[in-house]
Amino acid sequence: MKAIVLVAHGSRRQTSNDEVRSLSAKIAHKMSHEFPVVETGFLELAEPLIPDAIERCITQGVTEVCVVPYFLSAGIHVEQDVPAEVKKTQLIHPDIKMEVQPHIGGSDMMVELIRNTMLNR
Amino acid sequence: MKAIVLVAHGSRRQTSNDEVRSLSAKIAHKMSHEFPVVETGFLELAEPLIPDAIERCITQGVTEVCVVPYFLSAGIHVEQDVPAEVKKTQLIHPDIKMEVQPHIGGSDMMVELIRNTMLNR
Repeated sequence: MKAIVLVAHGSRRQTSNDEVRSLSAKIAHKMSHEFPVVETGFLELAEPLIPDAIERCITQGVTEVCVVPYFLSAGIHVEQDVPAEVKKTQLIHPDIKMEVQPHIGGSDMMVELIRNTMLNR
Repeated sequence: MKAIVLVAHGSRRQTSNDEVRSLSAKIAHKMSHEFPVVETGFLELAEPLIPDAIERCITQGVTEVCVVPYFLSAGIHVEQDVPAEVKKTQLIHPDIKMEVQPHIGGSDMMVELIRNTMLNR
């Protein structure tokens, strides 16, 4: 069974964290067939932190965790910090497959998303 | 003639700013029919700043500027800072139509974009 952990930076502003949680809920709704478990994890400033979010997935019986970095640019958070948090948890659970996806800012669909925003205004 | 100004926060890390400029180039390529002018503007830490990016559009003869906030959450930058920069320029050019679009994190297509990232891995 597969899980998605949507990972965001985390903010002191609770409504920003709630925006991410709300997106996770939409992902859970749309992708429940392939990914029955969807959790949100934060790098800092909000909870659950990434290792705790992955633990939540494992508690629910998943064998594969796909971490999606909800970041626009491939900075130090995407390239080092998020993978380091995942690796930390991987060492505790060597039997669980964990994979960090590309950050969403690199998606080929970003132009299409912006185009869609412009045309629907 | 219409323009898009893709607005990002700006980073000390030049490759992050270049990621945004590269996205603007893709938008220019895909949407040249409706938006013949596409510029990138930064709130801080990189150039051109938002007012300068809008000025670049006006110099090219556009009559309408659509500002697209390339931000994931509707924080203070999206709600106050970006509109304030646009308003500043609007006062200098009352004859040019300027409109701030919703931030991209609020797009209905975000789930689809993430789904696409997952399926193509």
